[in-house]
This record gives sequence, structure tokens and C-alpha cells, in this order.
Amino acid sequence: MQATYGQTAFDTLAISRSPISNSPGYDYPRIDNESRAVFRVKAPNAKKVQVDLSGLQDMTMGADSVWTVITKPLAPGFHYYWLVIDGVRVADPASESYFGTGKMTSGIEVPTPGEDFWRPKNVPHGDVRSVYYFSKTMNAYRRCVVYTPPGYDGDTKSRYPVLYLQHGMAEDERGWSTQGYMHFILDNLIAEGKAKPMIVVMENGNIAVAFRPKPGEDAARARSVYGASFAPTLLNDVIPMIDAKFRTIPKREGRAMAGLSWGGFQTFQITLNNLDKFAYIGGFSGAGLQADSVKSAYNGVLSDAEAFNKKVKVLFLGIGTAEGQRTKALSNALTAAGIKHVYYESPGTAHEWHTWRRCLYQFAPLIFR
Amino acid sequence: MQATYGQTAFDTLAISRSPISNSPGYDYPRIDNESRAVFRVKAPNAKKVQVDLSGLQDMTMGADSVWTVITKPLAPGFHYYWLVIDGVRVADPASESYFGTGKMTSGIEVPTPGEDFWRPKNVPHGDVRSVYYFSKTMNAYRRCVVYTPPGYDGDTKSRYPVLYLQHGMAEDERGWSTQGYMHFILDNLIAEGKAKPMIVVMENGNIAVAFRPKPGEDAARARSVYGASFAPTLLNDVIPMIDAKFRTIPKREGRAMAGLSWGGFQTFQITLNNLDKFAYIGGFSGAGLQADSVKSAYNGVLSDAEAFNKKVKVLFLGIGTAEGQRTKALSNALTAAGIKHVYYESPGTAHEWHTWRRCLYQFAPLIFR
Repeated sequence: MQATYGQTAFDTLAISRSPISNSPGYDYPRIDNESRAVFRVKAPNAKKVQVDLSGLQDMTMGADSVWTVITKPLAPGFHYYWLVIDGVRVADPASESYFGTGKMTSGIEVPTPGEDFWRPKNVPHGDVRSVYYFSKTMNAYRRCVVYTPPGYDGDTKSRYPVLYLQHGMAEDERGWSTQGYMHFILDNLIAEGKAKPMIVVMENGNIAVAFRPKPGEDAARARSVYGASFAPTLLNDVIPMIDAKFRTIPKREGRAMAGLSWGGFQTFQITLNNLDKFAYIGGFSGAGLQADSVKSAYNGVLSDAEAFNKKVKVLFLGIGTAEGQRTKALSNALTAAGIKHVYYESPGTAHEWHTWRRCLYQFAPLIFR
Repeated sequence: MQATYGQTAFDTLAISRSPISNSPGYDYPRIDNESRAVFRVKAPNAKKVQVDLSGLQDMTMGADSVWTVITKPLAPGFHYYWLVIDGVRVADPASESYFGTGKMTSGIEVPTPGEDFWRPKNVPHGDVRSVYYFSKTMNAYRRCVVYTPPGYDGDTKSRYPVLYLQHGMAEDERGWSTQGYMHFILDNLIAEGKAKPMIVVMENGNIAVAFRPKPGEDAARARSVYGASFAPTLLNDVIPMIDAKFRTIPKREGRAMAGLSWGGFQTFQITLNNLDKFAYIGGFSGAGLQADSVKSAYNGVLSDAEAFNKKVKVLFLGIGTAEGQRTKALSNALTAAGIKHVYYESPGTAHEWHTWRRCLYQFAPLIFR
């Protein structure tokens, strides 16, 4: 399926559209009718131009100094990618940039025909707020992102439950709105009556950050401190700030936490060590909880199934079918241990944002019931 | 002052700090004690690496395959820049990206010692909201950015005046918060009692957008339609939406508009043609209004000084001293025509964001009094 081509062949292809992730006015990259991405880069003086989209692909220079490539068919949804210009990995000026891999990177959105749960519709819209606060734990001013549901402003009496929702490793507090479109997912679910109106809080979990070891630094140690300050920041600074600033239901039955990948690890770590504060738990392609250590994990909280099932209203595990059997094995181990939970598979998607959009779409209707 | 250097010389330089605009964990670019930027790019296979920061500068490759350059001393504040890798202009992975020049681009923040009006302080903070709405004019879902001042949520009775605040050409609705830090400027002014608590609305003015002519398209025509749909969108869609959604003072005395550069042009065009809707006007390095056509501009609205002075509570013109005499000439022409106005010069700054931060800091205390 993979092919490179010159300008003449190029123009005969059926190119369907430029993705919503493009910079305004840029016709390329485009997605063709077979869900392949078509890239074009003008680089008369470069020796080698490549695209890195789940692996390096060489581009071919045509007579017009434009380098081109067609990828293999891509899974639906959002993919990070890079251009590699004579060996230097950079974001593509033709793309909006997204914070991923520890810096701003390009993304390309492959359309999902017939699947519009994450697109804007003619329904009331909530707001996505940047909220600035001082963290005593970090001794720093920080930003967290807060979704307030439609009607929050006009309704000055009701109190709302809160979902704390985390990004993946080396992403940040912007990810769930810019890559995930969580606001449209919630707007649509709330409009249909499928999810309770809720506040959603998204903070940066990369605290005590070491995306990459510094020269001479031990990689294992760098990993061990990665995100280590997030739990005290969330518990001691963010939650009290949110409960003071917004009309929340400030108790465990009014509080959920979910996260993707590394954010799933943080979710398990924080909720399973603090079940007095959270009643709903979601791991979207989550790391940390393993099939072979269910009973011993997190001080044995899962060893007493009856007590756990009484306390935790929803435990949700989601995964993309292209990600492998890890989460299925965990689900089986939980079932064997008598732990009630919901297991969801996103058809055809990998360890990428469309899996997590679908997970949120499945998880949000289950909580705060 | 400009110099390139090898690794040995490099390490002897007094490098003060990596700017707040860097990607997390990136030590370079840095700003030295003479406000020069120091760039480093590892590119073993590139033939030529340059930095474009108000002009192209060649970098020099050292023995470690790292290309380096020191710029000339830079003005304080924010500068857009690019890396040019073998002729391809790209954003620098070491930098946060900002929407400017019609796409995501790098920026570098040169510290402004002793000038902290735009930095976060221990004061109450307002929120910066992404607000989603449907524009009938554009037949599209759009985002605008809305600052609500500290206390807006808790105070359910008060109504607030609204400043409509526009970015420059080929920037977008994110600019004033991400490049301009308008929220910290307003938070600080409000905390000191220097500015009235106000709502600030920032939309994307690049409607009917043509950042660059398409092949074969006439450049003059492309420019003529640039932003042409913004005025009806603002007047017919945005303002009614804001007045319905937020607790505003929905009349001309409760409404200001200001903009920078091209956004200044849009401000003059919209306010001077609609003085029934706006009582306060700010042009920050604004285009459009010319010294030689004051009396004839905008259907002669400035030809009757007495009527104009009675109607317009504040007309503010700001400019950086490095930008030239254009706005000073306009101010002189307005004075000669008897038009009351405030003229402000930002010392030492060019046609860049630090000029406009300072303009907002000067303008906001004057309005809604």
C-alpha cells in the first residue's frame, strides 16, 4: 500500500480533504480515501526529508523541489508526527502543534466517518477555562484546565461532581482539550442526557519532571522522580482550590479520577491509596496495575473484593484493540479476584488519542449515578 | 556585538537563564547578561543551519555537531523566531509554539528586569475561558477566548463592562493570553485598584482568511478579503452571545475595543463606524487611521471634534519607540483637529508583544471610569 510518487501521479490521486489539524490555509497534509496521509514539503536544498509517523518514512523529491510521501492506511483519530529535515526532527509548519513527547509536536487527524461523538454539535457548550493558582507543594504559580458544563454560570445554586482527568507521559494539561476534544464529548453526552453535568479538572502531571535524563544522569533515577510531586499537588493544592472556587460536591461520591497511559498509572496510584477521596476510577490504556499483582498492589486494597466493591462505585478499564492483551489480562485477573469492573475495547485503535476519546465517551455516562 | 563561537568559548560565557518560553527541560536557547539570545541545535547531517529572528543569522557547527549562534542584544519581551534547516523554515523544538505568521512558530522571551506588571503575583486570578459558539455569519462553530475577572464566579449580582481585544495579522484568539499574558496584566491592575474589574473577549479576526495568496491568486485581492467577515461576526454573533452568556453592561458605556497592529485597524474600522456600540477605543501600534486623512476617515466621524469628544470617552494610541513616527504623526494630526486622545510610547520596544503588553497596562486603567 505504501508508495511514493512524483507530481504527475500525485494529481491523479483522489485526495479527500485536509485534516482539521492543519494550520489554516494549508492544503497538505491531506488524507486520501483510503485513510492514507499525503505529505508535501518544499525543500530545494535538503538532502533527505522524512516523515516520522509511527516510524520513519523517506520522502521523494519531485522536479518542483517538493518532497512527497503517502503513508500506509492510518487508524482513525489523532496521530503525532514529525518532519525530519536532514536528520533534525521538527514540527511541521503545515500542522497545528500539540504538547506531546515533552515539547510541541505535529498532529494529524484522520477522519472517523459516521463517528461524531467528539465533534461540535448544535447543543449547549461548556467552557474550558485556564485557571491560575499558587501551589504550596511546588512553590509555584500553576495553570490547570477546568471544564465547566453548560449552564454552570446561569445556575448559581446547583453543585456539581468533579472528574479529575489526566493526560499521558510528556503531555500536559492542554492535552484533553486540544488533542482529546473532551469538551465536545461531554457537551454531547450531557445534551443527550447520557452523562450527568460535571466539572472536569485537568492538571499537568509531569511534576518533578525529567522527560529525558541530563548528560550523566541515571535514566532509572530520572524515571523514578518523573511525576513524583503530582499526588501531593493534586491532593493538597488542586482539590482544595477547586472545591473552594467552584460549586462542587466535595466528598468521595462527588469525585472521580481517570487518566490515560501514564495518567492511568497516576490515577490508580492516587485513587487506590486514597479511597476516602474518590469513588470512581478510570484507567484508559492505563499503566501500573498488573494482572499478576492484583492482590498485593497498593497495600492490598484489591485483596478484599467485597469491601472494595462496596466502596468503589465504578472501576473502568479501557484499551484499544491494536494495543495488545495487557488490559484484557488485568480484567481477567480482576474478575478472578471478584473485583467488579467495566472492561471496554476501542475497535481498531492503538495507544493514541482516539482510543482515549472513546474511553471517556464510555466512562463519563457511568459515573456520578 | 554579533558573534559565533566554538564549544570552548561557549562555556566561558556568562549565560543567565533559559527563557520562560522554552519547552520544559530545555536549557537552550538562553539569554545572556547582555540580553543576547544563545541558540544551540544538534544537526550532524545538515549543511546549513540558521536562526531567523528579525533577520537570518548563520549558525556555526562545532566539533560536537552542535550548531551555535549568539544574536545581537535584543529588546525586552517576546520575539518570534524560526530555525532554518537547510533552507526549510521550522519551529524550534526547544521552544513553546505560538500562533503567529499564520502558523505555529517559536518565540523567545527576553527578561524585563524590574518590570513585573505582566507576571503572576500573589493576587486573586481571573480565568481565561475557551468559549464555543455557533456563528451564523460564518455558518461555523467557533472559539473565542474570554477573561472573567477575579470574583466573577462568586459574585452573582454585579454586571461587568467588556473589552473586546484583538490580536495582530496572522495571529489568533490565543495571542493575547499566550503571547500577551493579558490575564496577569489585568489581575495585577485589578488587585491594585488601578483598573475596574472587566470581562475581556478575544476572537479570531482572520476571517475570510487568506494569509498568503494561493498560486495564481492576486495578492491585492487576497489582502482585501483578509478579515473582511470579522466585523459582522463580532457585531452580530459575538457581542450578542457574550451579552447573553455573561453578566455584562450591554451598552456603549460598558463596551471598549482595542487591538494591536492589524487588530488596531479592525478596532478603528468597527468602533468608528459603530459609535452607538462602543465608548472606548484603543489602537496599539494600530494600522488604518492615518495622519493625512483624519477628517475624511470613517465617513468623517472625526471632523466634528466637539461631537466626537463628547461621545468617545477614551481614544488611546500606543506605539513602541523603535517603531518610528507614524503614530506620533497621527497623534499630532488629532491634536490639530481638536480630537482628545491619549498618546503613549513604550520605551525601547518594537512592533512586538511587549509594546502591546505595556499598551494594555496603560489603556485598561483609563476605561470604564
